[in-house]
Amino acid sequence: MPHISLPEGLPGIVGPMTYSPETTKPLNALAEVLLRTNASDSLTQAERELIASYTSRRNDCNFCSNCHGAVADYLFGLENKVVAQTWIEPGTAPISAKLKTLLAIAESVRIGGQYVTPEQIDDAREQGATDRDIHDTVLIAAAFCMFNRYVDGLATWAPEDPAAYTEMGKMLATQGYPGTVATQPV
Amino acid sequence: MPHISLPEGLPGIVGPMTYSPETTKPLNALAEVLLRTNASDSLTQAERELIASYTSRRNDCNFCSNCHGAVADYLFGLENKVVAQTWIEPGTAPISAKLKTLLAIAESVRIGGQYVTPEQIDDAREQGATDRDIHDTVLIAAAFCMFNRYVDGLATWAPEDPAAYTEMGKMLATQGYPGTVATQPV
Repeated sequence: MPHISLPEGLPGIVGPMTYSPETTKPLNALAEVLLRTNASDSLTQAERELIASYTSRRNDCNFCSNCHGAVADYLFGLENKVVAQTWIEPGTAPISAKLKTLLAIAESVRIGGQYVTPEQIDDAREQGATDRDIHDTVLIAAAFCMFNRYVDGLATWAPEDPAAYTEMGKMLATQGYPGTVATQPV
Repeated sequence: MPHISLPEGLPGIVGPMTYSPETTKPLNALAEVLLRTNASDSLTQAERELIASYTSRRNDCNFCSNCHGAVADYLFGLENKVVAQTWIEPGTAPISAKLKTLLAIAESVRIGGQYVTPEQIDDAREQGATDRDIHDTVLIAAAFCMFNRYVDGLATWAPEDPAAYTEMGKMLATQGYPGTVATQPV
């Protein structure tokens, strides 16, 4: 049961986002710019969603990992099993060498900002990462340390089955964040 | 040295916020609504800034703890030593019993959202905390887990001396966040 009274039947962050629309606006705006607007050939929307999902998985956040995993699955193609393999072991997942170095940075950020090492930054640069890639990776991982804590710190409910997130993943991938999350129950 | 090229002489979050104005806008909007717009007799601006500062201190984030500590000092009155005593031990600090229970929730959120217990929520309610107080405490603590990681994950520079933050504290307390942080070096 959630720690505060939330509208029933809304999974994960959708409950508190509906409860508190004034904070939802900047939260959705942040997700939109970080995961979609800033996307480029250098760091794609799919890769950004994978960083979000991986960070959330490492934080044991059921809702965020599955939700953003579904977005990444839609964008990479579910049949390629990119998300599932990255969750198990990024080193052997079918992703670029650059993205592997960025996921290592994201994992350090998740533990604590001070854990990012100059060697990790050097590794990423050797694989072609730009300042923008590194900046956005750090902020995506940091932002999901917030979203994960918002979702779990209020003890929100969410489906366990990843299949329950497929439609939400497609919707977020194609329509984006502002104004969509807070109105769509699973 | 920061992990990416940032404008020189700007402390803490001000460097990356200046580097990336498109993400700065929602980040400042979130701080503004959480720390100022939502403030009420139930959970004051000073108390919100104290939760932010305490969370940042526990995360060892030099810039955020000092910056928001300076805001809280301005609002509580520096001579009352509320921030300094809360950093040492919230249980004996000159703050309300309700705020002590909310700081315990914030500390659990900082460790991980799953660490917030029903007993902590009951304690807060017994001291008069509302759903809004609990929601905002969880989101403030979660948001500073993001801000702290953004600041330290990019290895930004910041003054060690708390006195260097006094003017910034006064400015943020009185003028707020949007459009101010990114243009004011210490």
